[in-house]
Amino acid sequence: MDYLVGPLPVGEKTKMRALTEIYHRPSIPYNARGFTTLGELTPLLAQLMPPLADVTEDLFGGSARGLPNDTLVGAIMAPLSFDGSFRRGWVSWRRNTPGPWLHPVNFFQYVDFSGTDPSQWKLLKLVYNHQVFNSSEAFLAAYHDGTLKRLPNRPDQDPAAGGWSTRKRPEASVARDLDYLPGPRSVSFAGLRFRVDRAAQYVSWMGWGMYLGFDRDMGLSLWDIRFRNERIIYELAPQEAIAQYAGNDPMQTTTAWLDRFFGMGSAVRDMIPGYDCPHEAVYLPATTHNFEGSIVRSRAICIFEHDAARPITRHTGYSEGEFGATRGYQLVIRSISTVGNYDYLFDYIFQIDGTIEVRLSASGYLQGGYWEPAQEGYGTAIRETTMGSLHDHVINYKVDLDVAGTKNSLLFTSTAQETITQPWFEDDWGSEVIQQKISKTFIENEDDALLKFPPNFQGGYSLVNKDAKNRWGIPRGYAIHPGYSPIHNTVVGSKRLLNNANWARYNLAVSKRKETERSSSCQWNLNLPGDPVVDFHKFFNGENITQEDLVAWVNVGMHHIPQAEDSPNTRTNLAASSFFLTPLNYFDADISMDSKNSILLSAPKKAGDPWSFDDYGVAPVNCIPDSIPPFKYVGVQTYGLDGKPAAPATADEMRKSAELYHRIKLEL
Amino acid sequence: MDYLVGPLPVGEKTKMRALTEIYHRPSIPYNARGFTTLGELTPLLAQLMPPLADVTEDLFGGSARGLPNDTLVGAIMAPLSFDGSFRRGWVSWRRNTPGPWLHPVNFFQYVDFSGTDPSQWKLLKLVYNHQVFNSSEAFLAAYHDGTLKRLPNRPDQDPAAGGWSTRKRPEASVARDLDYLPGPRSVSFAGLRFRVDRAAQYVSWMGWGMYLGFDRDMGLSLWDIRFRNERIIYELAPQEAIAQYAGNDPMQTTTAWLDRFFGMGSAVRDMIPGYDCPHEAVYLPATTHNFEGSIVRSRAICIFEHDAARPITRHTGYSEGEFGATRGYQLVIRSISTVGNYDYLFDYIFQIDGTIEVRLSASGYLQGGYWEPAQEGYGTAIRETTMGSLHDHVINYKVDLDVAGTKNSLLFTSTAQETITQPWFEDDWGSEVIQQKISKTFIENEDDALLKFPPNFQGGYSLVNKDAKNRWGIPRGYAIHPGYSPIHNTVVGSKRLLNNANWARYNLAVSKRKETERSSSCQWNLNLPGDPVVDFHKFFNGENITQEDLVAWVNVGMHHIPQAEDSPNTRTNLAASSFFLTPLNYFDADISMDSKNSILLSAPKKAGDPWSFDDYGVAPVNCIPDSIPPFKYVGVQTYGLDGKPAAPATADEMRKSAELYHRIKLEL
Repeated sequence: MDYLVGPLPVGEKTKMRALTEIYHRPSIPYNARGFTTLGELTPLLAQLMPPLADVTEDLFGGSARGLPNDTLVGAIMAPLSFDGSFRRGWVSWRRNTPGPWLHPVNFFQYVDFSGTDPSQWKLLKLVYNHQVFNSSEAFLAAYHDGTLKRLPNRPDQDPAAGGWSTRKRPEASVARDLDYLPGPRSVSFAGLRFRVDRAAQYVSWMGWGMYLGFDRDMGLSLWDIRFRNERIIYELAPQEAIAQYAGNDPMQTTTAWLDRFFGMGSAVRDMIPGYDCPHEAVYLPATTHNFEGSIVRSRAICIFEHDAARPITRHTGYSEGEFGATRGYQLVIRSISTVGNYDYLFDYIFQIDGTIEVRLSASGYLQGGYWEPAQEGYGTAIRETTMGSLHDHVINYKVDLDVAGTKNSLLFTSTAQETITQPWFEDDWGSEVIQQKISKTFIENEDDALLKFPPNFQGGYSLVNKDAKNRWGIPRGYAIHPGYSPIHNTVVGSKRLLNNANWARYNLAVSKRKETERSSSCQWNLNLPGDPVVDFHKFFNGENITQEDLVAWVNVGMHHIPQAEDSPNTRTNLAASSFFLTPLNYFDADISMDSKNSILLSAPKKAGDPWSFDDYGVAPVNCIPDSIPPFKYVGVQTYGLDGKPAAPATADEMRKSAELYHRIKLEL
Repeated sequence: MDYLVGPLPVGEKTKMRALTEIYHRPSIPYNARGFTTLGELTPLLAQLMPPLADVTEDLFGGSARGLPNDTLVGAIMAPLSFDGSFRRGWVSWRRNTPGPWLHPVNFFQYVDFSGTDPSQWKLLKLVYNHQVFNSSEAFLAAYHDGTLKRLPNRPDQDPAAGGWSTRKRPEASVARDLDYLPGPRSVSFAGLRFRVDRAAQYVSWMGWGMYLGFDRDMGLSLWDIRFRNERIIYELAPQEAIAQYAGNDPMQTTTAWLDRFFGMGSAVRDMIPGYDCPHEAVYLPATTHNFEGSIVRSRAICIFEHDAARPITRHTGYSEGEFGATRGYQLVIRSISTVGNYDYLFDYIFQIDGTIEVRLSASGYLQGGYWEPAQEGYGTAIRETTMGSLHDHVINYKVDLDVAGTKNSLLFTSTAQETITQPWFEDDWGSEVIQQKISKTFIENEDDALLKFPPNFQGGYSLVNKDAKNRWGIPRGYAIHPGYSPIHNTVVGSKRLLNNANWARYNLAVSKRKETERSSSCQWNLNLPGDPVVDFHKFFNGENITQEDLVAWVNVGMHHIPQAEDSPNTRTNLAASSFFLTPLNYFDADISMDSKNSILLSAPKKAGDPWSFDDYGVAPVNCIPDSIPPFKYVGVQTYGLDGKPAAPATADEMRKSAELYHRIKLEL
């Protein structure tokens, strides 16, 4: 197994966007820039919290007097602004413990840090146990004069379950039979069957070929995806990921994340070999930049072939040539981004029939709320005083399809019931038949191309080239086929997500491709819901989309009603959503029949004799697989603005750029 | 790797139902019994077809004069009766070639074979190219007097693509890079981690345990499914599979299959090792009976552990215990049933968090129609004169859940938008917030439990025990969560599916469990749409379903708008549908955290140092895997009614019981 090796040439094909550049882009109001390091807000909190320390210790057993002994850490919600004219946000305090996202204490401060002069920044409101105060002093006064309504004493953390909000194997774990053995492992005994050109960042497998890109905003993207030498997709790239929460506390009710802001790409860390990807996966590095320098991870992207353990086609037959099966191999290209509490697994799954499954799975920690009965309806208790809060995830992908060329049209195929008569109908059943019938409509105007899947999935959407027909006269097309959890955002009209993520209202949308409409979002949309840099609806301005170069904007997502089983981490099996891009009369027949990893059986002349077969000469190989190298995890290599290695001095420093809004400490 | 071996004890736990018994059950009208062997209808067709042979040869180059030289084979649609008072059906003729289902010739005969006296059976109508004749003589007269409107000459089968309707690798195949190598193979280097007790038909894996059943009607079923010694499901079993077609010809427009009739279980044949299941799968045999005797297949069921190649949970973190991953292993139990043209892959996928995915994939041949422009709307041309016809598949499963005991209630959880005010809302954003909120409703009456998934999947259904709460006070439950393609049948009210498959109108339904409501269908429902033996709607008779023993009847399915890529066989990647049975506050936390196939990483004190880790002692094993035995395929072993081996004399005889309505030959 001889992989191409060598570091990724920094800058080449990695469409990087440095934060440094954007901080100086004058069109973005300063207040909309939020903050992307921990430093900016902490001086204000360092004024606000120490004077409250004794009281917060009494109320909920935690305080923030300044590192290193703080038992509380802060977090702030977003958006911090509506239109860039102010910068204000709710700070929520959590216990400073592993998995702090599951330890809110129900204590919030609304702070104004508009403008560039920190001396103007101030506290606007303070909320404890649903009581609102306009100043720290008012809060303290209520505490001291006994008018403050206290929460019940918080139960101690259960010592028996110590570290319930960590990933440590619980002490009370029930041993599973044979779990001390490693499970099955996928091995390409005859060598890997895909090729990776590290210099060109080009991957090929079974007729597929594509370039990989990586950027600070959204991480991994795929370019010029070809199958059998014909381009199918020019660009396949995630655009944005929203997470809109509900609740009855100031944090959850006002949170509507757009994670591009934080950098889905810069939040990628090394994957864990053998756990995040199979042992024989090939890893590619990625580099991103921010205003402090650059970080490189050697295992940012993994690539592996996977046996779906299910034939892609098969039939049991008896006539010559009817009986056989073709193995269902897939190529998976994956990257994992951890934005604070949440982990997004981005998978691109290529199949031998021309199908791509784009799958997003989520894991990591919930953004928890403080559980109390008044939270009923906004989530589920997952611990004595912790809840998982109701929220929606919607993730948008740009799919710049070029189906048999760049001139494509949007076809809506639907089915409905009809009642018909035919001359041959017999009296036995009456003269009418109720059956279904297909309708095909070309959607000709962009304004009609903001789309939801039809009820009961009776029909769907595809891009076709009307002028390129398959051998049977059907326009060649690719369908955008729903996979797991084909949902759109529940809430429409919230001011906190007013116009900065309009794509989330649909399952998909199709627009005419333009260089000026390169993305459905941008880093700055988070804090500009009322005046976004990119307003997706503006892409849809009445243009004709017949036989034009089209882009499909396709969503995956999940309505997340949390449950006890989200603790400590959400499970990727249910927190998953996908769509398929799949040939629709694009070929003349199923071209997975090309595969030699197939078998054809022929019936014996005499029953009881074994069947003869043809396996196309692809016989199993049996040998000792390459040994698995000792486990080693490095994390990231960091570089300063001068390009020289600049390792963070401490582990705590390493986490800074990974946590952003989600963990604010008082660095005094 | 030491598997338990030995034959399946016939009769033990295999809830077999012999056709012999049912043919003598007096309550089934004779005419509703249809026919389940080829023999019954062929004498009538042998009268009808030879006199037309010269004409059919001229019209479409095929004839049926009698075996062995027939170039046409017949097929009949279903239902053959409405209420059992008659037995009449449309015979469609197809070329006698491999994959005959894709070769209809647009020639149909409506035959009456009511009653038990074959001398009374007769032709009622004949249709050729949309022209209806009341007798063979009228058809021949029109042919001879020149009034018959002929179809255009059918293009010859393309010799270059010879055998396009077979699974032979096409001669024009483009070689895929490295496809001459076998792909990755899953190997349990440390030995299999699941146990199979062949005598008890009991399977266990990672805390799961269950008994397997197998019957003639629907094949594989699972019983007493327990997880960590607690029963979750008493019975998980497919019930019925409908396929309702549309078209403008007499065959497709009148077809509404219920495949239980043909025997999903008796139609199971040996799986192909290494193709239908991974090499290291363990196979179990199954025996079914009919009025001719018994058949045994040694590879009726396969069981294997599968690495989903995706961690079930993971997080990148920096505090002690935050960073790690757990491998996403699954146990798959599979059986494949080939009912004539179609192959159903029944998968039960067990996961370490307590989730089961029930997945149905389809492959095999379409039931094709004759393509001509008048078929527009009823399918898609897949060849010059062949189309795939529009149809819906819906498959129903009985899920007899016992969630924390047998007293369960049906919970509907939904979300909707609300507009609220809170005292802390700030002027920046206005005094109102639009957000979502959860509603929980117990559905208390069976009549309200015929259910569809809510629009945009905003909410869902679960069975919970109100009296058994998890540690956080939430009733323990299991959710019925949609997976791929959560659809129900499109057509409602067709006489040919009037009351014999009412379950197909919904995504799921929940009823009070009764011994008298053991199945949603029965073998005889196919030919009794107007007077079915089992009318599912009758289960729903106003009973209270609060804290009762409940059964969920859950559907999977697919709206199949065929496409060129369905030829020669439908692909299992897109022709797939599933649902999940998954813990919903059933546990206090995610119990997949028990797994030792996990890793926990700890940040180094100094950046740049490798991270320390704990892999719970589960290290990879590296060795030569067990060699793969030479490929051998036997098919079935057959036994006569006397219990003695009774091999069919010829391969052609072997296929009889597998093809049923779908391939009728003239045996003279």
